[in-house]
Amino acid sequence: MTGARTADTTYTDAEVSEDLRWWDAANYLTAAQIYLQDNVLLREPLTPDHIKPRLLGHWGTGPGLSAIYTVLNRVIRETDSDWLYITGPGHGGPALVANVYLEGTYTEIYPHVTRDARGVRRLCRQFSTPGGIPSHVSVQTPGSIHEGGELGYALAHAAGAAFDHPDLVVACVIGDGEAETGPLAGSWKLPAFLNAVRDGAVLPILHLNEAKIAGPTVFGRSSDDDITDYLGGQGWEPVFVEGDDPREVFADLKAALDHSHSTIREIQTAARGGESTAGTRWPAIVLRTPKGWTGPHEVDGQRIEGTHRAHQVPLSGVRDNAEHLWQLETWLRSYRPEELFDDAGAIIDDVTRLAPEGDRRLGATPYANGGRLLAPLHLPPLSRYAVDVDKPGATVHPTTTVLGDYMRDIYSENSSPDYGGTFRLFSPDETASNKLDAVFDTTDRCWQLPTTEFDDNLSASGRVMEVLSEHLCQGWLEGYLLTGRHGLFASYEAFAMISASMVVQHTKWLQHAGPLDWRAPVASLNILLTSTCWRNDHNGFSHQGPGLIDAVMPLASDVVRIWLPADSNSLLSIAEHCFRSRDHVNLIVVDKQPHLQYLSLDEAGEQAAAGASIWEWAGTEGDSADDPDIVLVGAGDVPTQEILAAAQLLREWVPYLRVRVVNVMDLMALLPQTDHPHGMTDDDFADLFTGDGDVVFAFHGYPRAVHQLLHGRPDAGRFHVRGFSEQGTTTTPFDMVVLNKMSRYHLVLEALRRARRVPERSDDLTAYCREQLARHREYVREHFEDLPEIQDWTWS
Amino acid sequence: MTGARTADTTYTDAEVSEDLRWWDAANYLTAAQIYLQDNVLLREPLTPDHIKPRLLGHWGTGPGLSAIYTVLNRVIRETDSDWLYITGPGHGGPALVANVYLEGTYTEIYPHVTRDARGVRRLCRQFSTPGGIPSHVSVQTPGSIHEGGELGYALAHAAGAAFDHPDLVVACVIGDGEAETGPLAGSWKLPAFLNAVRDGAVLPILHLNEAKIAGPTVFGRSSDDDITDYLGGQGWEPVFVEGDDPREVFADLKAALDHSHSTIREIQTAARGGESTAGTRWPAIVLRTPKGWTGPHEVDGQRIEGTHRAHQVPLSGVRDNAEHLWQLETWLRSYRPEELFDDAGAIIDDVTRLAPEGDRRLGATPYANGGRLLAPLHLPPLSRYAVDVDKPGATVHPTTTVLGDYMRDIYSENSSPDYGGTFRLFSPDETASNKLDAVFDTTDRCWQLPTTEFDDNLSASGRVMEVLSEHLCQGWLEGYLLTGRHGLFASYEAFAMISASMVVQHTKWLQHAGPLDWRAPVASLNILLTSTCWRNDHNGFSHQGPGLIDAVMPLASDVVRIWLPADSNSLLSIAEHCFRSRDHVNLIVVDKQPHLQYLSLDEAGEQAAAGASIWEWAGTEGDSADDPDIVLVGAGDVPTQEILAAAQLLREWVPYLRVRVVNVMDLMALLPQTDHPHGMTDDDFADLFTGDGDVVFAFHGYPRAVHQLLHGRPDAGRFHVRGFSEQGTTTTPFDMVVLNKMSRYHLVLEALRRARRVPERSDDLTAYCREQLARHREYVREHFEDLPEIQDWTWS
Repeated sequence: MTGARTADTTYTDAEVSEDLRWWDAANYLTAAQIYLQDNVLLREPLTPDHIKPRLLGHWGTGPGLSAIYTVLNRVIRETDSDWLYITGPGHGGPALVANVYLEGTYTEIYPHVTRDARGVRRLCRQFSTPGGIPSHVSVQTPGSIHEGGELGYALAHAAGAAFDHPDLVVACVIGDGEAETGPLAGSWKLPAFLNAVRDGAVLPILHLNEAKIAGPTVFGRSSDDDITDYLGGQGWEPVFVEGDDPREVFADLKAALDHSHSTIREIQTAARGGESTAGTRWPAIVLRTPKGWTGPHEVDGQRIEGTHRAHQVPLSGVRDNAEHLWQLETWLRSYRPEELFDDAGAIIDDVTRLAPEGDRRLGATPYANGGRLLAPLHLPPLSRYAVDVDKPGATVHPTTTVLGDYMRDIYSENSSPDYGGTFRLFSPDETASNKLDAVFDTTDRCWQLPTTEFDDNLSASGRVMEVLSEHLCQGWLEGYLLTGRHGLFASYEAFAMISASMVVQHTKWLQHAGPLDWRAPVASLNILLTSTCWRNDHNGFSHQGPGLIDAVMPLASDVVRIWLPADSNSLLSIAEHCFRSRDHVNLIVVDKQPHLQYLSLDEAGEQAAAGASIWEWAGTEGDSADDPDIVLVGAGDVPTQEILAAAQLLREWVPYLRVRVVNVMDLMALLPQTDHPHGMTDDDFADLFTGDGDVVFAFHGYPRAVHQLLHGRPDAGRFHVRGFSEQGTTTTPFDMVVLNKMSRYHLVLEALRRARRVPERSDDLTAYCREQLARHREYVREHFEDLPEIQDWTWS
Repeated sequence: MTGARTADTTYTDAEVSEDLRWWDAANYLTAAQIYLQDNVLLREPLTPDHIKPRLLGHWGTGPGLSAIYTVLNRVIRETDSDWLYITGPGHGGPALVANVYLEGTYTEIYPHVTRDARGVRRLCRQFSTPGGIPSHVSVQTPGSIHEGGELGYALAHAAGAAFDHPDLVVACVIGDGEAETGPLAGSWKLPAFLNAVRDGAVLPILHLNEAKIAGPTVFGRSSDDDITDYLGGQGWEPVFVEGDDPREVFADLKAALDHSHSTIREIQTAARGGESTAGTRWPAIVLRTPKGWTGPHEVDGQRIEGTHRAHQVPLSGVRDNAEHLWQLETWLRSYRPEELFDDAGAIIDDVTRLAPEGDRRLGATPYANGGRLLAPLHLPPLSRYAVDVDKPGATVHPTTTVLGDYMRDIYSENSSPDYGGTFRLFSPDETASNKLDAVFDTTDRCWQLPTTEFDDNLSASGRVMEVLSEHLCQGWLEGYLLTGRHGLFASYEAFAMISASMVVQHTKWLQHAGPLDWRAPVASLNILLTSTCWRNDHNGFSHQGPGLIDAVMPLASDVVRIWLPADSNSLLSIAEHCFRSRDHVNLIVVDKQPHLQYLSLDEAGEQAAAGASIWEWAGTEGDSADDPDIVLVGAGDVPTQEILAAAQLLREWVPYLRVRVVNVMDLMALLPQTDHPHGMTDDDFADLFTGDGDVVFAFHGYPRAVHQLLHGRPDAGRFHVRGFSEQGTTTTPFDMVVLNKMSRYHLVLEALRRARRVPERSDDLTAYCREQLARHREYVREHFEDLPEIQDWTWS
């Protein structure tokens, strides 16, 4: 929307006065939410009974957040443009709720919070109370795509929202506390990745109130020059707004927003007109205002306003301390509530008319309720990419390449001439390494800095997002999804733990979004964990860790899914399901190296739906389905390979033993039906694993992860799980399964120990397996570089 | 050591030539490790048999790392000073191994890698092979405190090493890939926290070879001006060294190192002489050299040197491709190996004499083997801090304050007039919030930026490290510990997940350090998780997450310990144990709010040693130890409180039912003895939990975490675990236990369902519990702000 009106740069005294009244109303409602349970319009003198028994919430950041909100409203009205407001300082929850209440959005979404005295009382009483609303800017807050609890991701979320939304400007408020975190510090490099032609803009507003909970902040105590240099070096040109006189600050802030908006539009107009954007500096605002601005200046002789002491509740013990109660009343009355509300307790028109209209309101914008913008992906038919599997286990294929092919076409079928498109892949510099590089047939890596002749698939218009930061990949994708698009984050499995806490927080967001009817479903967060522990044999122990499975498993069962495809067609089938799904977090764990292929596309689809199935061709012929002596289970590519090899050894050496082979693709299917929507019934479970026979289970991750899922199943102790037992180094694939005691030989030995009947010739087979393992150790000792590579093995 | 000699700033052509020969040797050995299994001195023409069957390792970053190492050696010799080398680009493993081999350290530590032809062959063959050494700079690499796999922590580790080591300079090489990560970006703010009087110095060397695996890097393509601004804004003054002519680069690098060293000493001399350090800019070096420098320039018509294609193995398929084999031989011979090794295959003296002597060698410095510097903490007697417990459950105390008192005295008893001391507390701005603020009686928060009259406990000489970055807290502490000191990282429980991956990587480090005799034990990594899920009722769902337990549980059992003290004396006893322990990762999970107190200090010490014990006073009198109908178990403060309340209800209402109460303090004690050193024998387990009776278990974290530990115990299905089931919001403490179905009433109902005998009056008690829960729901619906606070409850 480069044709957007530019802001009216005049800002008359009268207009400032109008805006200050909105601000008064917002500040009043912010403080009232924290303190009052009754007499919320102050129509009578304040008494202890009017005060909440427990004072929760944060005042300190509120007035600054509301000042930005107020002035932004005017800019939006003047420019008739789309903005999204990201509240980095999430503790400012009551301030954001106050503003969306003033603009009317809150009541539209929550009709019981009416726009009258009764509604204001409800607004106050619900805040930070059981059955009410949380203290943060959270999923319950209209206009938010960003939970403010765990700090560090505001600017990454803002970036994700701006990608491929050419008309949008994201005002991203970053607190100076948050600015100390690593992920936020890493987010400033956005100008290297934001394309002025097809992407919207991000306007960072670094809000320095100089203090966090108990002390000063680094930026708060840094000079303007240092901050200018810091931001300038990363592609930003900051404007400083500083002061404690509201009238002056509002005027300066308006000028800064006007300047920023017109600069953004100039950059975009130039870029969209074909001009080079090399060396572009995007505008940013640094706002220095006192912490707890307009709140109590001094309490009990201690300075509060402008210090860290204003962070939370500036006046405590108000019920029991008459002096504090008086101070609270004086403070609240300083906003002249009697002039802000009409007789019915509704906010006066002079204030409410300052809000933008309809979806332009920051609380109402569909960009903050991305499901409203979401269109399903155009997904090409999977058959185009399927690997031919004439016979299970007879061919070898790098498992992930088909997903690269699939995503190549997803990119092309979901792109737009007017903007980039609705799908992106995010990866820390590993797209090619993870064998997904077919996407480069359609689009490049995204890069706004200079390029050279030696670069591969790199351009300003590229839409594959590679940055060596799992935090940015994850945060950008989250912002992209929550504003109505689709995508996938592909990572080395071990390093996905770097952003594990972000996965946890996004899962919490989706969990709490679920019951909110007004939040339209969004595309799922899809995470591909590849270059897995078993096949990072070349990179060593630091690269070997399946821990994200354990971190995700205990989270909301309505949200999380863990997929362990054993081959390419399984991966395709699961990927399609994940791309179609909504409001989930899908972890897909599969290695990128060449692996044996087992299932046709149809079979893979059936098994993905069932979660797990018996592989009859791999077990003892004929009676395998009936009454096995031992059940062998594989979950994941390498475990499945070893299970199949073990089954083959058992079939060859002890054909008399009845062996059943089961493959598990959907890990959550192991949970009881009561604990997860994918959980199997006890009957289905018994059909697969028998009712009481022993089960030898080879698992991709830490073995006890499976045991935790199995609790509640009859006789869960009969499951004997092998998996990654935290043994690793730089070695060969086969040595990895040996080190972790999950090799085919270990599995056979376990099976022989556990089988219901002691099979004939079991001593011979035991001896053979032990000999193989001993020979391997001998190899390592004597000819360590001559180990047989596991890839040579094929199913026969 | 402000009196250190300044470097000899002349660097003659002859000296450059000498150093270039060291560099040739290092580069030769780097490439040889990657490629050769035989003929490692190139005494005959290269044949395919001489080439390793699998080519692993990374060449690209190696020559730059070796160039720095080489020139640094000269600076060390000239200045006779202590340096530590941190290799951020960990893939440069073979380069670092080459250098420490040249200086002689490698052979001293690993005598089988002799300094002759046989040793060189061994050096090459062991690299990246089963039974050999990993491909990274890793715990096996002499001179390293930093595993180079998971990128982001080089500068944080360097900082931790420098704190309280006034004589040390840490040369911290940061790759431009790593520089894109969030944690590294957040680490540049070090000058705000590094005290020139008592701390050593960190010299960042930002090594820009412009490319990561498959594409360019942001800094690599940024201008010198932008980088200068970026670093300048954070307190650094960079010197640029750029080029591809080795002779020129070496000369410039020497000048840059000389300048940096003398600037550092000037800053320190001034500061130690009492001058103000306000506005100090610390030196930094930006080194731009080609990726894969001196390696193959072009292969198969494609440019390699200076591009991302030099990242890993620049020549592949060497065994089968005669042209590549010839190129490899030409490349290797370009270093003139025939002149580098004597007849016996030993490196010539002209090279080896360039190494510093003894412990000044970068591979031999005790700073990189911190256990050699480690002195046990002086720990004051715990009795000084113990809470009086006349009667269990009769008094309430904020659990963590005693730890604050204890650490206050640990600070004072382990400080030094010459340097800060040997103990530090690290926390993201939460020391006071976590009720550990007694430490401020001894020392302040550390802060090198301006202060104001409103700051609390803040000064340049302060040694409590508060920065709003879990990554920095964790990384600084890791660096501090690995260089021979002690400390604790205290965090809000939920946000400890932010640095979970760092905990995983540090655990891996300690796991692999264990078998290395030459690595002296270091102090354990102690993490206090407080402000826990149960009592972040005021902060809401984003602040409620016990997931770090699940992330740590599957890691090396030799390393990880998880402690759940139920009260203050338990916390004291565990803290003392943790502070004395070595090479462990201790997770201590305890809330900061007022909680009931149960154990005397002696009792707490006994239970900490045992891991768990029966609380006879809490169960049915007399026969509780013998044959209970139901066992109630608490692990953690809030769960224990609810279990005790449940036991009380059962005793009052159904005195005929035999109830046993067990408390678990050491979570790993639940594991089988075979799986963890703390694991209980089956006999001890049965003594606590009976052999076959049902057990109702209230657990601090996710319930299935306990189930995974219990697998392998007889009849594990009889355990019924309640815990945090991912239900949360801003509410009251009691509502939290209700939402998660772990309230006393839920536990009673579970116990009545599970008890071996159906007790008389069980219907009455069931009705009572249901009524209480219904009343609670009613409260929430009608008077949500009037809920009874759980703190009022006392044991009677």
